[in-house]
Amino acid sequence: MAAAASTSTPSELTAPVNKTVHAFDKGVLDALLARRFFFAPAFEIYGGVAGLYDYGPTGSALQANILDAWRKHYIIEEDMLELDTTIMTLAEVLKTSGHVDKFADWMCKDVKTGEIFRADHLVEGVLEARLKGDKEARGVKDEPAAEEDGDKKKKKKKVVKSVAVKLDDNTVQEYEYLLAQIDNYTGPELGDIIRKHKITNPDTGNEVSEPVEFNLMFESNIGPTGQIKGYLRPETAQGHFVNFARLLEFNNGKVPFASAQIGRSFRNEIAPRQGLLRVREFTMAEIEHYVDPLDKRHARFNEVKDVVLTLLPKDVQSEGRTELTKMTVGDAVAAKIIDNETLGYFLGRTQLFLTKIGIDGERLRCRQHMANEMAHYAADCWDFEIQSSYGWIECVGCADRSAYDLTVHSVRTKQPLRVQQKLDAPRVVDKLEVTFEAKAFGMKFKKDATLIKETLMGMEKDKLQCIKDELANGSSSVQCADGKSYEITPDLVKIAPITVTEHMREFTPNVIEPSFGIGRILYSLLEHSYWAREQDKARGVLSLPALVAPIKCLIVTISQDPSLRNLIHDVSRRMRRLGIASRVDDSGASIGKKYARNDELGTPFGCTVDFASIQNGTMTLRERDSTSQLIGQIDDVIAVVDELVKGTLDWEGASKKLESYSGVQDVAE
Amino acid sequence: MAAAASTSTPSELTAPVNKTVHAFDKGVLDALLARRFFFAPAFEIYGGVAGLYDYGPTGSALQANILDAWRKHYIIEEDMLELDTTIMTLAEVLKTSGHVDKFADWMCKDVKTGEIFRADHLVEGVLEARLKGDKEARGVKDEPAAEEDGDKKKKKKKVVKSVAVKLDDNTVQEYEYLLAQIDNYTGPELGDIIRKHKITNPDTGNEVSEPVEFNLMFESNIGPTGQIKGYLRPETAQGHFVNFARLLEFNNGKVPFASAQIGRSFRNEIAPRQGLLRVREFTMAEIEHYVDPLDKRHARFNEVKDVVLTLLPKDVQSEGRTELTKMTVGDAVAAKIIDNETLGYFLGRTQLFLTKIGIDGERLRCRQHMANEMAHYAADCWDFEIQSSYGWIECVGCADRSAYDLTVHSVRTKQPLRVQQKLDAPRVVDKLEVTFEAKAFGMKFKKDATLIKETLMGMEKDKLQCIKDELANGSSSVQCADGKSYEITPDLVKIAPITVTEHMREFTPNVIEPSFGIGRILYSLLEHSYWAREQDKARGVLSLPALVAPIKCLIVTISQDPSLRNLIHDVSRRMRRLGIASRVDDSGASIGKKYARNDELGTPFGCTVDFASIQNGTMTLRERDSTSQLIGQIDDVIAVVDELVKGTLDWEGASKKLESYSGVQDVAE
Repeated sequence: MAAAASTSTPSELTAPVNKTVHAFDKGVLDALLARRFFFAPAFEIYGGVAGLYDYGPTGSALQANILDAWRKHYIIEEDMLELDTTIMTLAEVLKTSGHVDKFADWMCKDVKTGEIFRADHLVEGVLEARLKGDKEARGVKDEPAAEEDGDKKKKKKKVVKSVAVKLDDNTVQEYEYLLAQIDNYTGPELGDIIRKHKITNPDTGNEVSEPVEFNLMFESNIGPTGQIKGYLRPETAQGHFVNFARLLEFNNGKVPFASAQIGRSFRNEIAPRQGLLRVREFTMAEIEHYVDPLDKRHARFNEVKDVVLTLLPKDVQSEGRTELTKMTVGDAVAAKIIDNETLGYFLGRTQLFLTKIGIDGERLRCRQHMANEMAHYAADCWDFEIQSSYGWIECVGCADRSAYDLTVHSVRTKQPLRVQQKLDAPRVVDKLEVTFEAKAFGMKFKKDATLIKETLMGMEKDKLQCIKDELANGSSSVQCADGKSYEITPDLVKIAPITVTEHMREFTPNVIEPSFGIGRILYSLLEHSYWAREQDKARGVLSLPALVAPIKCLIVTISQDPSLRNLIHDVSRRMRRLGIASRVDDSGASIGKKYARNDELGTPFGCTVDFASIQNGTMTLRERDSTSQLIGQIDDVIAVVDELVKGTLDWEGASKKLESYSGVQDVAE
Repeated sequence: MAAAASTSTPSELTAPVNKTVHAFDKGVLDALLARRFFFAPAFEIYGGVAGLYDYGPTGSALQANILDAWRKHYIIEEDMLELDTTIMTLAEVLKTSGHVDKFADWMCKDVKTGEIFRADHLVEGVLEARLKGDKEARGVKDEPAAEEDGDKKKKKKKVVKSVAVKLDDNTVQEYEYLLAQIDNYTGPELGDIIRKHKITNPDTGNEVSEPVEFNLMFESNIGPTGQIKGYLRPETAQGHFVNFARLLEFNNGKVPFASAQIGRSFRNEIAPRQGLLRVREFTMAEIEHYVDPLDKRHARFNEVKDVVLTLLPKDVQSEGRTELTKMTVGDAVAAKIIDNETLGYFLGRTQLFLTKIGIDGERLRCRQHMANEMAHYAADCWDFEIQSSYGWIECVGCADRSAYDLTVHSVRTKQPLRVQQKLDAPRVVDKLEVTFEAKAFGMKFKKDATLIKETLMGMEKDKLQCIKDELANGSSSVQCADGKSYEITPDLVKIAPITVTEHMREFTPNVIEPSFGIGRILYSLLEHSYWAREQDKARGVLSLPALVAPIKCLIVTISQDPSLRNLIHDVSRRMRRLGIASRVDDSGASIGKKYARNDELGTPFGCTVDFASIQNGTMTLRERDSTSQLIGQIDDVIAVVDELVKGTLDWEGASKKLESYSGVQDVAE
């Protein structure tokens, strides 16, 4: 390469761009996303349906690139076993998992218009509006802290306008109490609140009906008889668990290992109102990592122990506080803030993944579930929440699901979903043996007998000793995976010490599950990437990393001359051969317009050919965020673009390989 | 690289392997596919459901690689606009497309057991069994030709055992006539045949009910009101069409261009019985290529004109013959056997794609739809059929759907789904102008009036002249996209010549649609790739091309020595960095067992380290099909594997870069 007769130093070329000069305007971003067909309401020409969206060419490519990065970061890097299971799921499977009975929300209707509300969202929206009206009437401004706290739920409910009406102090206190507990109420309790506080449809003033439960799964029938009931899966996880025996065999019978799946799931939301953040059909990526319950260490924990997470632990929340703590994964696990190494490992890996694809690390936090939020079987659960104009939204859930799922499927199907581990040497162990008065036991517990037996048989020695002690005092109780507790008495169950020589150990693995909502991540990423040029609020830019940008390089010419048109198609072919997703714009628009379009598409690089290209064989290269430009021989420029896209070179490095260029000032146009 | 002291010449190393020494045994292949978890019945531990399958790690990776190759071959290579639209589809969209009314099969029930049959499959199975029994009774052997013809439908219906009973000659003739026409009967006609020929459930001898129509779409409700009906899409195509206006805008208003989509579709089959070939949930890849109806040339036609296709044109079939003709795409289009260049282009590209991923070109044919098979609106349609143990099965359909879909959606939604083309120069044209007696026309045709008007307005001059001439004689008829014909008279419609100056041309594009059933291709590929080693029928091999093989390279050691185990994990890391999907097998199994497992997984290459690796830094490389081996420095072997996987080097080339090795004879074990 010829030595660069550069007039700019590299640091000038990569001078930071002021991306925050204009306040974020969601309306402007939404218009950009629609104009560039990132996504649009499904069946838009038929009027659309809430909660269903189609991804256009840019959105599809962005999604495909995020998924590709995900596959490499998790599946390839960690040799996970990928699965592709059916969406249509036998009802019985989801009955066993608990979804048929429990995967529901409470809804109520405007008794006159029939408009439907999620009961908790309606109560929340109305009470918050009344509190806001009260503050207005008292002339009090919302404190930022309260704002941030309320943020989380902003817009998930119907937006209710506030009216300045002063409330008495007791009422304010009661409303605040109700709002703090809103996630904990049952349907009948929400009904009581609605009646007591005269909550009506804010648009019509009409009364609303008593809340009724609505299962969020789409239901259908399999085959022509109408006798086989199916649901569209609400998560991919059950498809992993029912295949556990085959997966274990594929892995030569050993744990730990992980299965992974990318695919569509469905939730028939009652009244979705949050764009891509609350939809009825969505792409998920889920990992089920199977571990020995007695050993949740992770072989590669050291690789992530220094990753810094922003934590919001449960004890902080339970004190009503929201301040965040920055802490390394290693410290958080050592301090038992995060339950175990494997969970910590995935939290660290996920932090790395999300920031790698372009999520702003400063708008990312790990919020631990509080005891009353978690499924009864979960040992620990953390959500990665990403902050956007909708507030802090859960985008990745990392849960320790314990042995729950494998146990319930095993009990229901009588298939052993367990790991057998040969011991290095036989061992003599003092154990507690459980025996049952089969007939009496069966008569007392009927259909639940098997579950209770399995639970007792699989119980660890310490727990069993407690039960033995309690039985000696007359009775004890067994907490089972169905969430219920069963009372047992000494006439039904006997527990006695025995000494056995063991050659094998058998156990049901625990499952650590990182579960990604791809659409939520994609939308958050668009918000985090968006800004507008200082000169013009309407000149939007999406600063997507090259790794995920839908198109990596724009190829344009300054003139419609046929020789230049041929040249850009030749450049395009050469880039395609290197696997660089490029796009030729040979329309008659001005260079400035083409660059502006390019910025809106988030294309990080742009190559321009002009008559000098034919005379000297050169081409210019533009960087999207700084709009700075370099120039070099066409082959050299293509080689630099290849490295920039692969991530083996940054713009500063590129500016050492190519000369600086200041021929066309696109931002001045 | 050191000069190879080879004892074998390259041609010996790549000596062809006899892959046909054992007759194909589907049972053995099925066992292999289950053992290696390519796929398995969904919810197997719950007893499964017909027509639903899960892909395991190998099947998922094979599918992902096929889709990746597809995306590069079509979407990237041709700059198609990718889409990702919803599976859940508003009923109104599928009403407009015709699926709600017409996407159905006829079924009947065993009146006592309730067992369900597809009516045409039942009639076919029973009549064929009777004909077979007749031949047995007459002592006539089936001719191979008749076998091959029958092949196509083998196993798609319930298998019915034949009993040697002689039929009279008239009956034989009648059965043969019925079978030849079987795809053409309506439900009531099938009912007549069932009654006349006393067709019963072959298993029970019970009568079957009158055929009733069963729509093959899964139905569900969107949202909690039960008022918005949705179906799971039976194809991805409608998701393209409803987005046409946005796609056209994205493409700067110009045709031709194509949209493409990979995704799940659903068909609630009445009684699926063909493994992966007839399923209720499947992955499709569809292209909708939009062209000017007056210009169906293709800019890149020259690139495929010499590709040789194996054709079974409609006129050959209508004469009851089945012989295949080999012909280049160029000749077939020139001879008007294939309707137009664009259709020919996609047939050629698809032939290249299927053979590239490993489909046997000798078991691949293009069968043209006969007039009565085609949708009424289709201009021409060709199926790529792949031969497997199930017969010749449609795996890719290439149809010219004309302007049907865009027209019906446009009429229904009143959105213009048309292209406006600025003419290079204004032109003075003699046209025929159509005017309507609005009131009388509306009264006569009511809801169909708009469709008939649109059809007349969009009609080409020649056709319009015919209608004008017919109207002069009293009346004419208009064939519309809904498949119906409407009579018009001079009091309703007037057609008169006018001269106009046009600056723009407006038209509804025609759609050429290549549509791929990925599961069918995947299963056919597995059959085409499968063979067994000469020494042992149980030693199966899947000769998958490296391009699509789930794992590209196995990495093993001959001993469990820790230094060797460290070394293979190091080799694995280096391959992963190059993006080579490799898998370490560090189990205690013998090398022979590991290679055998490797062959069953279709892994094309295997690297083995032993103590020489530590002393000399060498590693051996094994080729799956020939089992021949090479040896070289570890870095050199990894570089060769990289090239072999990328396809820039073949085994003969590799054997020039590395030395031949004959240390371990795995096949002898």
